[in-house]
Amino acid sequence: MARKASLSGFPEWLPEERLIEQHVLDVLRRTFELHGFSSIETRAVETVGDLLRKGEIDKEVYAVSRLQAEEASASEAGLALHYDLTVPFARYVVENAGHLAFPFRRYQIQKCWRGERPQEGRAREFTQADIDVVGDGVLPFRYDIELALTVVEALEALPIPDFTLRVNNRKLAEGFYTAIGLQDTAAVLRSIDKLEKIGPEKVGALLQEELGADDDQVRLALELATIRTPDTSFVERVRALGVAHELLDEGLEELRQVIAEATRRAPGRVVADLSIARGLDYYTGTVYETVLDGHEGLGSICSGGRYDALAHKGSRTFPGVGLSIGVTRLVSRILSQGFASVSRAVPTAVLVALADDDAWSRAQDVATALRQRGIATEVAATAEKFGRQIRFADRRGIPFVWFTDADGTHEVKDIRSGEQHSADPASWSPPAEDVRPVITIA
Amino acid sequence: MARKASLSGFPEWLPEERLIEQHVLDVLRRTFELHGFSSIETRAVETVGDLLRKGEIDKEVYAVSRLQAEEASASEAGLALHYDLTVPFARYVVENAGHLAFPFRRYQIQKCWRGERPQEGRAREFTQADIDVVGDGVLPFRYDIELALTVVEALEALPIPDFTLRVNNRKLAEGFYTAIGLQDTAAVLRSIDKLEKIGPEKVGALLQEELGADDDQVRLALELATIRTPDTSFVERVRALGVAHELLDEGLEELRQVIAEATRRAPGRVVADLSIARGLDYYTGTVYETVLDGHEGLGSICSGGRYDALAHKGSRTFPGVGLSIGVTRLVSRILSQGFASVSRAVPTAVLVALADDDAWSRAQDVATALRQRGIATEVAATAEKFGRQIRFADRRGIPFVWFTDADGTHEVKDIRSGEQHSADPASWSPPAEDVRPVITIA
Repeated sequence: MARKASLSGFPEWLPEERLIEQHVLDVLRRTFELHGFSSIETRAVETVGDLLRKGEIDKEVYAVSRLQAEEASASEAGLALHYDLTVPFARYVVENAGHLAFPFRRYQIQKCWRGERPQEGRAREFTQADIDVVGDGVLPFRYDIELALTVVEALEALPIPDFTLRVNNRKLAEGFYTAIGLQDTAAVLRSIDKLEKIGPEKVGALLQEELGADDDQVRLALELATIRTPDTSFVERVRALGVAHELLDEGLEELRQVIAEATRRAPGRVVADLSIARGLDYYTGTVYETVLDGHEGLGSICSGGRYDALAHKGSRTFPGVGLSIGVTRLVSRILSQGFASVSRAVPTAVLVALADDDAWSRAQDVATALRQRGIATEVAATAEKFGRQIRFADRRGIPFVWFTDADGTHEVKDIRSGEQHSADPASWSPPAEDVRPVITIA
Repeated sequence: MARKASLSGFPEWLPEERLIEQHVLDVLRRTFELHGFSSIETRAVETVGDLLRKGEIDKEVYAVSRLQAEEASASEAGLALHYDLTVPFARYVVENAGHLAFPFRRYQIQKCWRGERPQEGRAREFTQADIDVVGDGVLPFRYDIELALTVVEALEALPIPDFTLRVNNRKLAEGFYTAIGLQDTAAVLRSIDKLEKIGPEKVGALLQEELGADDDQVRLALELATIRTPDTSFVERVRALGVAHELLDEGLEELRQVIAEATRRAPGRVVADLSIARGLDYYTGTVYETVLDGHEGLGSICSGGRYDALAHKGSRTFPGVGLSIGVTRLVSRILSQGFASVSRAVPTAVLVALADDDAWSRAQDVATALRQRGIATEVAATAEKFGRQIRFADRRGIPFVWFTDADGTHEVKDIRSGEQHSADPASWSPPAEDVRPVITIA
């Protein structure tokens, strides 16, 4: 990002940068719809109560209130901007359960806000693209596999480097820690989550200091967390640690299924990584994280997991599984590293030039004819010298300029090559690669 | 809207309603891009100072602040959610002037927030779709005509009833009021703006009480404001009032040009309406308002105007003209009146059924083959009885169910007609009208 945002953490793109973001959003939408996900949007605000029930990130939440508070109504007290799309989606499902067909598949692409300290890959306003499937009472495990494969397909269609989807399972970890006598599994996971950042020694020290773990427990916990395999061989490696627990077995089998199917359908993209913890409390089974290979420092570009108890309405529960792609994080990196380029900065393919000021209305007729065939067209606003009108097109990146003589004959000029030939507004089209701005992987 | 929003003024759509909103947004994007407008987005927050400089709507603004204020940094003090897209756009132009080619044409489709009392057609969170052209120093008047015609084309492509774009000109009004001795033209415009709501008598009384207007001034002001013509005959009617002023002449000629071109290119869509005032102070010439015929009570669905001094950087000014379509207002009315319907609620065209649980991976192969040809496909998650799998598709609105025998032969069933025939995953396609959900005007 060459330019600095005028408000730190709130990036804004130039038109040509926005074209790359739009391309990313279009690819995601298309992939999600091809997989049968319906679009929904939720309001930007939730009640503070709803937002904070599910996380420990109160310091990061932006509260919203009327500037002139004397008129504030009770219904508006305690509103805040959502910091993700999972919590709002859970509320939406509960509220609209009577109108939805379950299992309900939805995608949701919206802005989120977190008051974190801005840095590359971490903005205060950012776009997330989520897919989730939610069941009524039960949700077959196979959706855990399907959703991983869907995001892999979506990410493969983007102008980004290779990536690795890392998968773990909370049941596996919780069963293992319980079996070796570390009862506060949430606390263990929080320490293990720091493995990549602070290394095994410091994590071991944390486990000893905070949880009173002995040497054996620390050794086993770290041995588990360092298992990472591109295939199902992690199962034997866990077994070799000699720990047994029913929940561990369940988690191992679930993770085995994900990895077995993924290695078949998306070879090289998915690994079992037993260090993956994910901070959020609501995950109960599979957890996912994704890194761009060679850009691990950027953080996860796509995360999520299975949550069996996030949404409920009385005794009725709505278990779900989902993943969230960090669109702004990805687009920032695409732009800063030049992973992609765009053939021009404007949608316009043709500028209709004016021979004189009275020609404007006839020039609009030409433009209308071209637009009817899907060719984006502008009309010059004033009849400057042709040279100036051509320079105007050139400066905006418009590839073709259209001329109409007083006798009504038409010519079109490719201002890149200088080639000019006669053309009919009712039938002429630019070459396919010039109809729209084209995104190319650099 | 059958359902009540859980937070008053913050509407949320069901998936089938969202399909109609997406259709509206897709049509607008396509039309704007065909006319050469580039997409941009601006951050949701502006400084309170920037927001309030341009309007009198401080009571309606939502302030944003970190929930845990002890860490709030200076840069975050005094932030608020934008209430329109014009003021943020003006800031964006000034900040990025060095990176933009002028005249700069942009469209911007985003949420806005106003803390107004909610009612149909007036939400607290709503989507606006704006187009503007901004020049560097000067902006030819012809853009005032072009932008009106662009939104007419966009609105004509939407599933809504007939509409009328009403146009007036601030110069015309200000010249006229000045000439008859009413110097506080902004105050006159504020009273005239109420004409449709409270009627001519009460507006007359307002002019007398608040501005000390005499009978003659009231009569002339009301006579001007009641002129409404579908053609350029308004010019003679204004002239017949016997008032002369240079600014009046200028405004008359500008409005004449808009109406003359509009009656030629979009007959019946555009009228000169000399009662249109528009509340916002920054308009300096042409002003626009649009009503749905027969739904005038809904308020304007598309408004805007020319602003010559909204954006400046030192002595450099960026005059602009633009219009803003109230997407949420329109979609609310489309939904509540049933102006449009959608052929199905989900993107999915085909459900691949499972003969047994081991068939899941092969079923994914079928789905992949169909998706590669743009056919949205889901795979059943469990091998329930075929009857149940068909009912699942029916309940979700999926028109086709795909069956694969143990010997590898494929059949596809249209569950609406019951018709079933053999099909090849590599070549079969549904009829064109079943590929995607189709929006039909009711």
